[in-house]
Amino acid sequence: MFPEAEYRGRLARAQAEMRRRGLSALLVTTETDIFYFTGFLTRFWASPSRPWFVILPVDGDPIAVIPEIGAALMGRGWVSDIRTWPAPRPEDDGVTLLAAALAEQGGPVGTPDGPESHLRMPLADFARLKEASTHAIGSDGGIVAALRAIKSPAEIDCLRAVCALTNRAFDRVGEIAGEGVPLPRVFRAFQSLLLEEGADWVGFLAGAAGPDGYEDVISPANDRPLASGDVLMLDTGAVLGGYYSDFDRNYAVGEPSDCAVRAHRTLIDATRAGFDAARPGARACDVWQAMTAVTGRQKARFGHGLGLHLTEGLSFLETDESVLQQGMVLTLEPYVTTREGRIMVHEEVITLTEEGALPLTRFAEAELAVL
Amino acid sequence: MFPEAEYRGRLARAQAEMRRRGLSALLVTTETDIFYFTGFLTRFWASPSRPWFVILPVDGDPIAVIPEIGAALMGRGWVSDIRTWPAPRPEDDGVTLLAAALAEQGGPVGTPDGPESHLRMPLADFARLKEASTHAIGSDGGIVAALRAIKSPAEIDCLRAVCALTNRAFDRVGEIAGEGVPLPRVFRAFQSLLLEEGADWVGFLAGAAGPDGYEDVISPANDRPLASGDVLMLDTGAVLGGYYSDFDRNYAVGEPSDCAVRAHRTLIDATRAGFDAARPGARACDVWQAMTAVTGRQKARFGHGLGLHLTEGLSFLETDESVLQQGMVLTLEPYVTTREGRIMVHEEVITLTEEGALPLTRFAEAELAVL
Repeated sequence: MFPEAEYRGRLARAQAEMRRRGLSALLVTTETDIFYFTGFLTRFWASPSRPWFVILPVDGDPIAVIPEIGAALMGRGWVSDIRTWPAPRPEDDGVTLLAAALAEQGGPVGTPDGPESHLRMPLADFARLKEASTHAIGSDGGIVAALRAIKSPAEIDCLRAVCALTNRAFDRVGEIAGEGVPLPRVFRAFQSLLLEEGADWVGFLAGAAGPDGYEDVISPANDRPLASGDVLMLDTGAVLGGYYSDFDRNYAVGEPSDCAVRAHRTLIDATRAGFDAARPGARACDVWQAMTAVTGRQKARFGHGLGLHLTEGLSFLETDESVLQQGMVLTLEPYVTTREGRIMVHEEVITLTEEGALPLTRFAEAELAVL
Repeated sequence: MFPEAEYRGRLARAQAEMRRRGLSALLVTTETDIFYFTGFLTRFWASPSRPWFVILPVDGDPIAVIPEIGAALMGRGWVSDIRTWPAPRPEDDGVTLLAAALAEQGGPVGTPDGPESHLRMPLADFARLKEASTHAIGSDGGIVAALRAIKSPAEIDCLRAVCALTNRAFDRVGEIAGEGVPLPRVFRAFQSLLLEEGADWVGFLAGAAGPDGYEDVISPANDRPLASGDVLMLDTGAVLGGYYSDFDRNYAVGEPSDCAVRAHRTLIDATRAGFDAARPGARACDVWQAMTAVTGRQKARFGHGLGLHLTEGLSFLETDESVLQQGMVLTLEPYVTTREGRIMVHEEVITLTEEGALPLTRFAEAELAVL
């Protein structure tokens, strides 16, 4: 958890935006939004059985309206107004308590409703809440997403640390992978490497292997053992203090093909071109332009924001005109098609300072690593 | 992935319920509901940047309306009608495509809106979808939750396997924990044990340690090294083939106190009483009654359903009159207060057959294990 001043700064920035937009409060319901404002960190979000609510009033301190089971943990943080009910209680799972707390704030209330958001409560309960509320519950106008997109120095330190431990685990892939090893064993052992190097947990792992590349980048392990001539790709999101890394590495199993070697060099060149183009004031599409000038035009996006989620915020896409800002943490993620139905992908993480991009990962060499 | 017949059976049961309730289709949007009907398994749900939709028509096969990035993986399963768009595309993230696919089905359409559910798409997009839809989108009337609560033999095999590997990891806690070891190190090493024993990944881990017990059961590791006289509790949800285990174990660090020894015996007795009371036809509150007759009355629930989520379905609570059914998988999770502000918790997993309860975990001994 960060010092209280970090959370107070986030709240103050949210309040300034609420004032500007005439909102009396924000209501947040998800793991990452609640963590962002309160520091409440638990893996218990894996349980969908209880809703959790935090109210951020335009004046004053946050109010946590949460299940009793979370009171002890929330009480260790900086939020002092904690109201609980014995959840699960399907007939009234916090709805009455939340409606009363919101009524104290007046209206209108905003809740995140834009890209990448969802409301983490049952729709039927949300309908009841709106009925029980004296004031309208509408959009937050993107306030929370905009705040979260700009990382503080403390957040960037966390992201640098989680990227560094991920780099160290990637350095050790030779210990666990090679010809004949089934991919599920590689996946399990790689997660252990991430834990040994200091990850709190592993929030994401995908990967694949095949001659000259792979079909997609979101699949779990298939059963095929690694074969000489394969390119193995592992893409992971390790978590440290609630913050995600997100990058991948490619490895040749035995002697790499010329095609794979060339593709990897192109990816590294494209990443470097993206790095040079990424600076405050540039647009997301400018960075996409710089990378696709090297790889050729591709359909999927070439990177995105990173933080409390594996992916969040802007996209390096032809159509995304978002302006890059100091304090953003972003991935550069070009890919190339190596042959019909096969691709190779490379990914690095950067942050934006006044002067331009700074790497948060130790960038890969142009030469494809050989296992 | 299960054989196609498994998914066809689930669909047929959903369709029978849709017919009964006059629904033309179901719309599901979450990781577990989509996995349940399609077998689509990926850790990419850690990325909130793209919504995913599956339509289950009252007649005919499912329609997947998904981001292009998932087409290859979805195509490896049994669903053949796969419609994609290049997501993320904030100005129309699948809404038009989904509205058109729903229009083919007629109405009304049901989507899960009851306890434990949420809609995994931005509220603003849901408003647009309702506006673009020719028919009403309302409640699924609990169809999906009711289906998922009764596990098939194939699902029970998965749950038995993930509980068994979790048991094996708990057996090895002596290798990684003991006096002087900081809790974060125990947490990391325990996750590696679960991976070594065959978990695909570790979806949940909480725990704590202290004299005669701990404050709560949802906290991440604090920095305090284990001390002689502590009771260490680890509660985990390992994942195998998409299915969760969920149980804990307690360990004495050095010589246990009489209080901890007695509390553990009480917990084991209460679990056994719950086991004896759990049979098809009994109510959830009857099982709660049997366990609290041993422990004394407590505020929080004493167990719950288990499956694709760490917790799902009914609660062993005084107020839950749900009738237990054959094929349910449930946890028995009594706790006792050992002294002011400290508790000890124990948990096991069972399934219900015609004859009564069967253990899916290897039940713990009455004697508290000593590290």
